[in-house]
Parts: sequence; structure tokens; C-alpha cells
Amino acid sequence: TKVSVVGAGSVGATLAYAALMRGAARTVALYDINATKVEAEVLDIGHGIQFMPMAEIIGSDDVAVCADSDVVVVTAGAKQHAGQSRLDLAEATVGLVKTIMPKLVEVAPNAVYLMVTNPVDVVTYAALKISGLPSGQVFGSGTVLDSSRLRYLLARHTGVAVQNIHAYIAGEHGDTEIPLWSSATIGSVPLTEWRGMTGPDGTVVGRLTEADRERIAHEVVTSAYKIIEGKGATNYAVGLAGSRIIEAVLGDEGRVLPVSSFLDGYLGIDDVCLSVPSIVGREGVRHRLEIRMSVEELTGLRRSADALRGVARSLGL
Amino acid sequence: TKVSVVGAGSVGATLAYAALMRGAARTVALYDINATKVEAEVLDIGHGIQFMPMAEIIGSDDVAVCADSDVVVVTAGAKQHAGQSRLDLAEATVGLVKTIMPKLVEVAPNAVYLMVTNPVDVVTYAALKISGLPSGQVFGSGTVLDSSRLRYLLARHTGVAVQNIHAYIAGEHGDTEIPLWSSATIGSVPLTEWRGMTGPDGTVVGRLTEADRERIAHEVVTSAYKIIEGKGATNYAVGLAGSRIIEAVLGDEGRVLPVSSFLDGYLGIDDVCLSVPSIVGREGVRHRLEIRMSVEELTGLRRSADALRGVARSLGL
Amino acid sequence: TKVSVVGAGSVGATLAYAALMRGAARTVALYDINATKVEAEVLDIGHGIQFMPMAEIIGSDDVAVCADSDVVVVTAGAKQHAGQSRLDLAEATVGLVKTIMPKLVEVAPNAVYLMVTNPVDVVTYAALKISGLPSGQVFGSGTVLDSSRLRYLLARHTGVAVQNIHAYIAGEHGDTEIPLWSSATIGSVPLTEWRGMTGPDGTVVGRLTEADRERIAHEVVTSAYKIIEGKGATNYAVGLAGSRIIEAVLGDEGRVLPVSSFLDGYLGIDDVCLSVPSIVGREGVRHRLEIRMSVEELTGLRRSADALRGVARSLGL
Amino acid sequence: TKVSVVGAGSVGATLAYAALMRGAARTVALYDINATKVEAEVLDIGHGIQFMPMAEIIGSDDVAVCADSDVVVVTAGAKQHAGQSRLDLAEATVGLVKTIMPKLVEVAPNAVYLMVTNPVDVVTYAALKISGLPSGQVFGSGTVLDSSRLRYLLARHTGVAVQNIHAYIAGEHGDTEIPLWSSATIGSVPLTEWRGMTGPDGTVVGRLTEADRERIAHEVVTSAYKIIEGKGATNYAVGLAGSRIIEAVLGDEGRVLPVSSFLDGYLGIDDVCLSVPSIVGREGVRHRLEIRMSVEELTGLRRSADALRGVARSLGL
Ligand SMILES: NC(=O)c1ccc[n+]([C@@H]2O[C@H](COP(=O)([O-])OP(=O)(O)OC[C@H]3O[C@@H](n4cnc5c(N)ncnc54)[C@H](O)[C@@H]3O)[C@@H](O)[C@H]2O)c1
Ligand SMILES: NC(=O)c1ccc[n+]([C@@H]2O[C@H](COP(=O)([O-])OP(=O)(O)OC[C@H]3O[C@@H](n4cnc5c(N)ncnc54)[C@H](O)[C@@H]3O)[C@@H](O)[C@H]2O)c1
Ligand SMILES: NC(=O)c1ccc[n+]([C@@H]2O[C@H](COP(=O)([O-])OP(=O)(O)OC[C@H]3O[C@@H](n4cnc5c(N)ncnc54)[C@H](O)[C@@H]3O)[C@@H](O)[C@H]2O)c1
Ligand SMILES: NC(=O)c1ccc[n+]([C@@H]2O[C@H](COP(=O)([O-])OP(=O)(O)OC[C@H]3O[C@@H](n4cnc5c(N)ncnc54)[C@H](O)[C@@H]3O)[C@@H](O)[C@H]2O)c1
Repeated sequence: TKVSVVGAGSVGATLAYAALMRGAARTVALYDINATKVEAEVLDIGHGIQFMPMAEIIGSDDVAVCADSDVVVVTAGAKQHAGQSRLDLAEATVGLVKTIMPKLVEVAPNAVYLMVTNPVDVVTYAALKISGLPSGQVFGSGTVLDSSRLRYLLARHTGVAVQNIHAYIAGEHGDTEIPLWSSATIGSVPLTEWRGMTGPDGTVVGRLTEADRERIAHEVVTSAYKIIEGKGATNYAVGLAGSRIIEAVLGDEGRVLPVSSFLDGYLGIDDVCLSVPSIVGREGVRHRLEIRMSVEELTGLRRSADALRGVARSLGL
Repeated sequence: TKVSVVGAGSVGATLAYAALMRGAARTVALYDINATKVEAEVLDIGHGIQFMPMAEIIGSDDVAVCADSDVVVVTAGAKQHAGQSRLDLAEATVGLVKTIMPKLVEVAPNAVYLMVTNPVDVVTYAALKISGLPSGQVFGSGTVLDSSRLRYLLARHTGVAVQNIHAYIAGEHGDTEIPLWSSATIGSVPLTEWRGMTGPDGTVVGRLTEADRERIAHEVVTSAYKIIEGKGATNYAVGLAGSRIIEAVLGDEGRVLPVSSFLDGYLGIDDVCLSVPSIVGREGVRHRLEIRMSVEELTGLRRSADALRGVARSLGL
Repeated sequence: TKVSVVGAGSVGATLAYAALMRGAARTVALYDINATKVEAEVLDIGHGIQFMPMAEIIGSDDVAVCADSDVVVVTAGAKQHAGQSRLDLAEATVGLVKTIMPKLVEVAPNAVYLMVTNPVDVVTYAALKISGLPSGQVFGSGTVLDSSRLRYLLARHTGVAVQNIHAYIAGEHGDTEIPLWSSATIGSVPLTEWRGMTGPDGTVVGRLTEADRERIAHEVVTSAYKIIEGKGATNYAVGLAGSRIIEAVLGDEGRVLPVSSFLDGYLGIDDVCLSVPSIVGREGVRHRLEIRMSVEELTGLRRSADALRGVARSLGL
Repeated sequence: TKVSVVGAGSVGATLAYAALMRGAARTVALYDINATKVEAEVLDIGHGIQFMPMAEIIGSDDVAVCADSDVVVVTAGAKQHAGQSRLDLAEATVGLVKTIMPKLVEVAPNAVYLMVTNPVDVVTYAALKISGLPSGQVFGSGTVLDSSRLRYLLARHTGVAVQNIHAYIAGEHGDTEIPLWSSATIGSVPLTEWRGMTGPDGTVVGRLTEADRERIAHEVVTSAYKIIEGKGATNYAVGLAGSRIIEAVLGDEGRVLPVSSFLDGYLGIDDVCLSVPSIVGREGVRHRLEIRMSVEELTGLRRSADALRGVARSLGL
């Protein structure tokens, strides 16, 4: 199995590192226009190969290094600067996608394409249109990372293991994203009915009020800004989220992941890429789950769709 | 961290093997009255240590080998014979528990006790009463295995990854167990509303009708009998389930697991050990989740409770 | 990736379990003439899939289940009985190999064949001749298990991590096997010069005298008998050793493993299968290392070769 | 188990990430004087917790966050700038060590201290003297990373799995370091006698001449400079190397690792910290292996020792 990562920046290099450490692929190829950078990252990661499952890392500033990949992850792009909204980055990045995608599809026509570059929903839409590949074969990391942030905060708040917090964020990877509270569960308890845990002395810990939920949802949206302010980029969690998605594809897992893909008649939403819980397997996005949503959630999702479609139109897509 | 496994039979040895392979504990101690058997198992597992995360296996027919364990797993007992119902084994096994528990508690007073020996709910109740330990510190593997069987069959039927099938079996580990369909979900879709996946050509696969659910529930109950008929014991899945529970304790995970523990006013059920989704952490069972159940499910659970209480009474517990 | 395991007995089923737990293959197929047994093992292992990396287990009494495997592991055979020497089993087992191999090669012509059934060296020789496949594509687990036993005992004796004990056993997997002491090292210290560790108080622990080495070598040879006496079969360590070999093949690792393969002019030894440290990769055995041996070691190896060649001849191979 | 990482820069944060992904510790605490930075790193890593083994990450600019650690890893310091020799950084860094160590020892008196900050050998010497802790409890990551670089290059050159390349670099982590060729092995073949692999067509690949060795040794020394030039820091491999050392301590592994520790009569070398293959366990460095060295190697090691001792003296240590 071969995974190529386009863009050897903070996100791309950490994603390669995480994927290798997790044994997600036998060969990881890094491609970047910056030859010195890509060589340095390949050396630094390669030196750690001894401590990983059997694997190989290669890299180049020649796109041929991506040839015959099973999965191509696109992280090339400009860093998001403190204060800059994700949608502001759109125009330049779409230009980049127009340059890169045809070259990639030429060397790796059968790969599944995972877009990570922001604004990821618009970038995914652009990549799909430009590549002409079947919808499903091109999708974005979407709100996998946001959902993982949500679950992390809920786990810390409730004291329940994060693996038992089943909650998704849908919509845009960005400011208009929507936590799907009404279908979320903790274990098999609806999240909105969670009453906390009663200790041996009768005290209750980890209750989750509506105010808590709102605060947590707000923290999810702001945390990316906070991280970028504090360290200039986000890379660790997105590296893991990306690796998880790669594993779902290469392992043909049929895994539910809130990735960003082309919607065509999903709860009345059309002609836009955004995230809804979807089944991911060897061919990419296999199916989108029709989630029962509250009126607010559905309204929010449609608003997110309209906003994203507007951006696409304004960029001539 | 030290885990002791009491009984080096099919279940005990495989559980030790699985726990070591998963890195669940630094030291695993096997204790069995059969000295030749325990020595053989320790040698056979020890010879594989090179291929595992750093660990150590020791064993003896002297209970002192369990001293100062963090977790003690009790698998000692008689094999379940083909045709024999789980409850038939009760009497002899409760006698065994009366002999072993005091000796174990003497050498490992602070351990969390995980009962696996069948009939596991009655054995757990007996172990709790005999040991005098706080409820929570003594619990049974319960329907963790049965739930894992259910999820496996649902995953195969629907084509969704088993990690996204959130369904629990509650009640007795045995013939009266109840699948909690009404609170089960696939991703965040209620299981009872699952409509299958629509492929690119419009065909739908993996629908799940009520008849499918009944057939699958039936298969879960009968599969243990089938395995015992075919190979004389069940050991592989229970080894993994046991290891998973150990990890929840040693990692203080706050993990939701349908283990068998003492109920005291749980949905009107008292003075019996049976399985409901519970939070497991370093101290053992921390909390039992109050699941919304359908009338049939609740009736079934109470019937299961009455049956188990009846057995306990008839054994003088 | 697909691995087939022929023979769902103690060794085959445990090997399948270990390989799945380690994520060594995406699909494991079990094939056994005993349909009830194979179905029971598949169910028992399948029920644990939830606790493993993404994988699938299938099984049948129809050899077609092995179709298009990447690796086929042959464990079919009779259990070794207490007291019975490994070579005694030869005749019946060679007959079995004659029946199975052509059918396997028909459905899985490109697979690498890993023989585990005992007497493994003779079985490997037979399988190679019968299949007509290139030498290298058919080899035996050989002394991988024995070397792992040796390292385990040396690690316990010296207090050094087993991963830093570099010692191989060569020759027959059986009574005439030879520990290659003269080339063994601990860290980068020749094993024969190991002086133990000096504690802070000046006391030395873990010295390794010639008498210690002899005792340990003897324990390795006798431990299989001891385990069979105590539990009727050996399965745990061999399951891990087999999984390790599979990983070396599927990961194209170039890993040094003392597997049993056809020697043709190796240190003057010809026309026999036995174990020497060899490089294993995607195509099977890629290269045999020319180890510097002491006179005793080389003499022992040749004696082992003569004994094995004799058995092969007496079986008409 | 608790591991604290002092300094949440490239190295510290990546090391925390790697340790969590590998399950090396239950709790990782990040401590940095830069509060915004440490908070951002903790958030970014925390958001990925869902994809890791059970673990927790905390962080603060208050040293109390390190309280009661089992291991403290010190990475605080200034980045090595392109062109700057490692020893040039010494003075400022020793000042930093003088400030930090007493505070750390106060809150975590029983921790094992792993120094990573460069110049690591001098920093280790300073930390040992300042802390007053027993030699063995304070040591440096030394040439673990350099040895891993060496093995990586040798593996690529020979085509043998890196796990079977047993070669250490000793001495200073820096320009005077010495590859211990004379005791290195590939599998059990002395590295200096490695003749490559013979393919089925008789061609030999992966020979290793003296010129190859020299070129590879040179590449190891220069690669750190190259990486820093290309990406401004090295973090991925050192994160894994650090995690490996932590695992050796927490797992009480008795693992051979070329860490930097205080030498007192080692092959005639005294009163200096530098790297030689050493046994690492729960208490830290347990024993230093007396390697058979060639005259050149021993001369080189002594020269390295003299250089390091000189630096220490010039810094008033
Ligand atoms: N979707 C998510 O969840 C998520 C999370 C974090 C970051 N991101 C996004 O990922 C992207 C990368 O972030 P980063 O921090 O790694 O940025 P970065 O600036 O560190 O790296 C970008 C890399 O892309 C390379 N590049 C630019 N043009 C290229 C081209 N034509 N071909 C190949 N490589 C090219 C650059 O040389 C650079 O190395 C950004 O768009 C960021 O917003 C997305
Ligand atoms: N709860 C579950 O999900 C589950 C699943 C499978 C099996 N089981 C149960 O696990 C138990 C063990 O099954 P098995 O197949 O391993 O049986 P087994 O007969 O192979 O092993 C039982 C072992 O217990 C030992 N033993 C007996 N008395 C002992 C004592 N006083 N002290 C120490 N050791 C003693 C025996 O020597 C034997 O080695 C059975 O009760 C079985 O029904 C439970
Ligand atoms: N090489 C080693 O290091 C090593 C170690 C342990 C065991 N072994 C050997 O492995 C073999 C298996 O041992 P076990 O304990 O699993 O024995 P077992 O008796 O438990 O299992 C053997 C299985 O092979 C099946 N079988 C028989 N004929 C078959 C055929 N024609 N096609 C398919 N399946 C067939 C049987 O039905 C049975 O299930 C033995 O030869 C044993 O000596 C080798
Ligand atoms: N030994 C090795 O193998 C190896 C390999 C790579 C890097 N390094 C060394 O590791 C060190 C760190 O490198 P980096 O790239 O992470 O640097 P960096 O500049 O990215 O990070 C250093 C961090 O230390 C913090 N810091 C400074 N003073 C502190 C104090 N008193 N208390 C707590 N935190 C403090 C800074 O705020 C900064 O976040 C350097 O000395 C580098 O040379 C060693």
C-alpha cells in the first residue's frame, strides 16, 4: 500500500509521521515544491523508522513520487494566519488545486483523494470538479477533526472514555459547523438525557447541561484559532485524524466518519461538499447516513450549505 | 501493573496470552491447582515473549503467585459440556468460589476482581458476598462477550465497521439475555431505523428488518453452544473481551462495558448481579447507565433478574 | 492481503488469532477437513473482531477458501503425542502433504508457502518437491520458535531485554538442532564473553558460564516435550512465531529469520531443508546468511543435514 | 505512570505526541515557561486523544504540573541554529539547567531524568552535578538517535530490515561521535564481513565496503545539520527515540541503549558523561556494556571524552 502526502508542511509531515507510526501504509511518499524542506522531513522521519512498524518513506519535489498511490492526501497550501477566517484563504488555494490535481490524477488515476487543505469543503468541491473523478473518490477530511475535538471535551467533562462518546459535527469545517446534539449518545444514553455519574457517596459528577453543551460547541470552533495563535499551526490532531481516514480506506473498513463529500439530494441539499456522517471504504465515500436532525440542526446544515455554495460560485466553480 | 489469572484452562491461558500481546499488563501471573498444566502454559506463552510488548509471565500452583495483583481474573472452573445449560454448573462452581476467594483476597486485598467462570452472574454474586469487598470491586465479564458477538453479526449483516455498531446485550450471560435494540445505534442512526446503504447504482444493501434482528439475537445465544460443540470450549473471543475489561480498569478508562455487577435499585431491580452498560475504571464498576428501555426489554431484564435471584437462593446465597 | 491457514487445530487457530490481533493480514482464511471444527474456530475468533485491528476471518472445509492467498501456512497434521519423537511422525505427514499441496497450489499459485507441520524440515522438503515451486517460495517455520525459546531463557538468565539477545538456533527443528553460540551477541558483546552486570554495590548478576549455556540449550530442546506433556500441544509461541514470519513476507521486510529452506551449496551442505539465519521478504526466502561457525557448530549442522536427508530418502523423497 | 516533558518546543511536543501514540505513559505533562505555547500544544495533542491508546495530556507554565513524575524529559532550551556547532550552545544552556533542575527535583524527587537538550552530554553532566541525584538516575538521550540514523542508512544500503542491524554509535552526540564498526553485526554476521545478498540470478546486492561505511558515518554526522537547514529543527526521530527510552525505563526493560551517562572507570575513561551501549531499566542506567573496541574506536572515544571534559571545565563544572 502506498499513501502520498502532497505538501510537506506542518500538517503533511505530521500526518506522514502519524500514518507510519500507526502502520497505516507500507510506503509513504511526501511531495512538495520545496525540495530542501521535503528532503529534510523525509530524513527526519526516516531516522525514526527503526522504532516503527515496517515501512518506508520517500519524498521529492517531482510529482512522479506519487505514482500509483492508493491514497493521495492533499495538504499543500498556505498556513492559516491568526485572525484570518478560513474562507478568506479560498481564492489562492483554489488556484493551487487547479494546478496540482491534474498532475496528480495523471500519475495516480486510481487513488482515493483526501483533501485537507483549507477551506477544505470548497477545496474538495474544486478538486472534484477539476479532476472529473467520480464523486466518492474525492472527499475532504471535513469535520473528522472537529468531531474529535468535540468528543475530547465531552469526555473530559463527563468522565466517560472518549471511545464511548458518539457525537458528530456536521456542515462546514469552520465557523458555521453544527454539532448534531439530537442524535448524539454516550454509551447508549442520548446525550441530551445524560444525568452524570453517581458516586458511591451519592454525589453526582459530570452532568451536562444545555449551557455546558453550548460552551463546549463554542470551544470547538474557537480552539483552532487558539492553537494557531499559540503555536502557529495545528498539526498533531489533524495528523491522527488524517491517518484514521486513510486506514478506513485502505482497510476497506466501512467506517462512519464525518467527511466532506459531494451532496446530491441529501436531506434536500444539493451541489455542495460538506460533512455528514458517511461510510468510508476502499472506494472512498460509500454512503451518507441520513441522520434524524432537529429543526435547528437541519436549518443550520442548510445555512452551511448555502454559505459554501456561495463561496464556490464567487470563485467561479 | 500485575494481573493474575486464576485457572490456566482454555480461557485463562488464552486470556493471559491476549492480555500480554495487547500490552495490557507488565506482569501476568497464572494460578492453577494443576501444577503441570500451569507450568506448560507459562512456558508456551513465555516462549513468545520476544514477539510481544515488554512483559513477563509467571505461574504456580501456589496462590502466593497472585500476591499484590492489581486485577485478579477468575476463570477456574469446570468446562461447560455440550448440551449442559450454564445454570446447571452453578452448584459445584459456587463451592469452588467459596474455597478460592478468601485465599485470593488474603494475598491481593486491593485487587479488582473480574469473574469469568460460569454461570458468571451467580458466580459474581457469590464472590461478592464471600469476599465482603465493596460492590464495584467485584464484577463479572457478563455480556461483554455476548455484545461483541451481537456487534460482529450486525457488522457483517450491514457492512458497517463493527466499531460503529453501538449495541448492548443486558441481563444474564445466558439464555435469558436481552439485546437492547431500542437504544442501539449504527453511527448515530437508531438501529431500528437503519435502512441499509444505497450503492452508486441505487441498489440497497444491508437492510436490517425485525426478522433479521431476531435471527441475529438467536444466533448470539446459540453460538456459544455451537462453538463448544465444535471445539469443546470457547476461548479466543472471551480472551479478548477479558483483556479489554482489564485495560479499562488498569487505564482508569471510564469505559462503558456491559459487565455484571450488583444492582441495588437499578430500574427497580435489587439484590442480584447481572449485566447493564456500566462505567468501568480503576476502582472497578463506577456507575451503571440508566438506559431508556422498551417495555419488552425492561420486562425481559426483570425476568432475567428473577431467574438469577432464584438460582442464588436455591444455592443458599 | 490474504493469509490462509491450513489446519484449524491448536496451532492453526492460535496462529490465525495471533495474526489477526497483530494486524498481520486483512483476511485470514482457515481451511480444515473437519467442517464443524473450522466453523467453531471461525465463530470464536470472529466474535473477538471488535477488539482487533480491522480484519476478517473466514473458513471452510472446501480448499477454495484459500483462493488467491498471499501466504499459505500449513499446520494440518497429527498432534505430536507425548514421548513420540518428531521424526516418527514423518511418514503419515508426508502422505498428507502429497494430498494437500497440489490442491493448494492450484487455488493459490502465487502464494508463499510456510510449512509448520512437523517434522517441519522434512515436510518442507516434501512440499517443495511436490509443488514444483521455486525454492524460496516454499519454506518452513524451522527454528524460529526454538530461537525464540533460547532468547527467552537467555533474557531471563542475564536480565537483559529479549530484544537485545541476538542468538540463533540452526539445523533441524528437533533433537539435533544447534545453538550458534559463537556468533551470538548480547547488545554488541559476544555472548561467550558476557560477564554479567555489575550492580551499584559491586555484585555481579546474570553471568553466563558454559555450563549455563549447555543447560539452557538442553532446556530449549526438552521444553517442547514438557509443554506437550503438560497441555497436550504447543500453540501460543508458535502462533506468534508464525505471525512474525507472515509479517516479514507481507511487509517485504528483509528480516533475518532462522527459517527452514532448501540448501544448495550452503557451507558445503546440499539437497536438504533445514534452518539457517535467512533473509525473508515478499518472495519468501531471499538469501541465506553465511554465518561464521565454530568447528563444533558446523559439524553439528552437517550431522543435522545428514539425518534429515536420511529421513527424506527413507520416505522415498 | 506519569511522564513530564520540560519544554514544549518542536522536540518536546513531538516527543509527547509520540509517547502518547505508543501508549508509553498514562499521563503526559508538558511544562514550558511560554504559557500560550504550552496550552496550544496540549490542546492540539489532546484533540487527537480519541485516536490513541487511553491517555491524558496536561500542561502548564507552573512546574507543579510535573509533580510526582516517574520520568522527566528535559528538552527546554534554545533551538540549534543552522551552522552553529552543538558545543557552542553550551554556556547558555547550562545556565538554564541550573535554574530548572532544582525546581524539578523538588517536585519530582524520584523521577528518572532524561536529558535531551543539547549539547546533551554536557547538559547531562551539569544536571547530574546540580541535582545531586545518584548517577544512573540522570542520563541523556545521547547517541540513541544517531545510532538509529546509522541503522536506517545501513538498512537501506544492504536491504536488510533495520531491526536486524545491530550497530551503535558511541561518544559525544555530535561531531566527534564514533560508530562502533568492529562490534556491529547484521543478523549474526559481523558487519565488517558482510558480503551482500546473492539474488536468484547470481548478482550480488547490498555489499558494504569500507568506503560505504565511511560515507554512511559521515552522513549520520551531517544529517542533523541538513535537517535543521531544511526545516529549522529536528523533531520526528528524536520524539521516537525519546519515547523508546521512556518505555525502557517505565517497562523496566533491561534494554541496551547507547545513552549518555556518567563514566567512572569505563575503559579507562572517568568523570564525563558520554554514550556507550548501556542497560536501561526502572532505575535509569543500570550498567554500561564493556564493548570490545578496535584501537581507532577506543582512541576516538577517549578523544571524545577529553573534548567533553574540556567543555565542562571551561563552563566551570
Ligand atoms: N482540514 C483540516 O482539518 C485542517 C487542519 C489543519 C490544517 N489544515 C490546512 O492544511 C493546510 C496545510 O497547513 P500547514 O500548516 O501544513 O501549512 P504549511 O505552510 O506548513 O505547509 C504547506 C506546504 O505546502 C507546500 N506547497 C505549496 N504549494 C505546493 C504545490 N503546488 N505542490 C506541492 N506542495 C506545495 C508548501 O511548500 C508547504 O511546505 C492549510 O491549508 C491548513 O489550513 C487543515
Ligand atoms: N463468562 C464468559 O463469557 C465465559 C466464556 C467462556 C468460558 N467461560 C467459563 O470459564 C470457565 C473456564 O473455562 P475453561 O474452558 O478454561 O475450562 P478449563 O476446564 O479448560 O479450565 C479450568 C481450569 O481451572 C482450574 N481449576 C479448577 N479448580 C481450581 C482451583 N480451585 N484453583 C485454581 N484453578 C482451578 C483447572 O485445573 C483448569 O485448568 C468455565 O466456567 C467456562 O464456562 C466463561
Ligand atoms: N514447527 C513448529 O515449530 C511447530 C510447533 C508446534 C506444532 N507444530 C506442528 O503443527 C502441527 C499441528 O499441530 P496441532 O497441535 O495444531 O494439531 P491438531 O491435531 O490440533 O490440528 C491439526 C488439524 O489439521 C487438520 N487436518 C488434518 N488433515 C487435514 C487435511 N488433509 N486438510 C486440512 N486439514 C487437515 C485436522 O482436522 C486438525 O484440525 C503438528 O504437526 C505439530 O507437530 C509445529
Ligand atoms: N539530544 C538529541 O538527540 C536532540 C535532538 C534534537 C534536538 N535536541 C535539542 O533539544 C532542544 C530543544 O529543541 P527544540 O527544537 O524543541 O527547541 P524549541 O526552541 O522549539 O523549544 C524549546 C522550548 O523550551 C522552552 N523553554 C525555554 N526555557 C525554559 C525553561 N526555563 N523552562 C521550561 N521551558 C523552557 C521554550 O519556551 C521552548 O518552547 C535543543 O537544545 C535541541 O538542540 C536534542
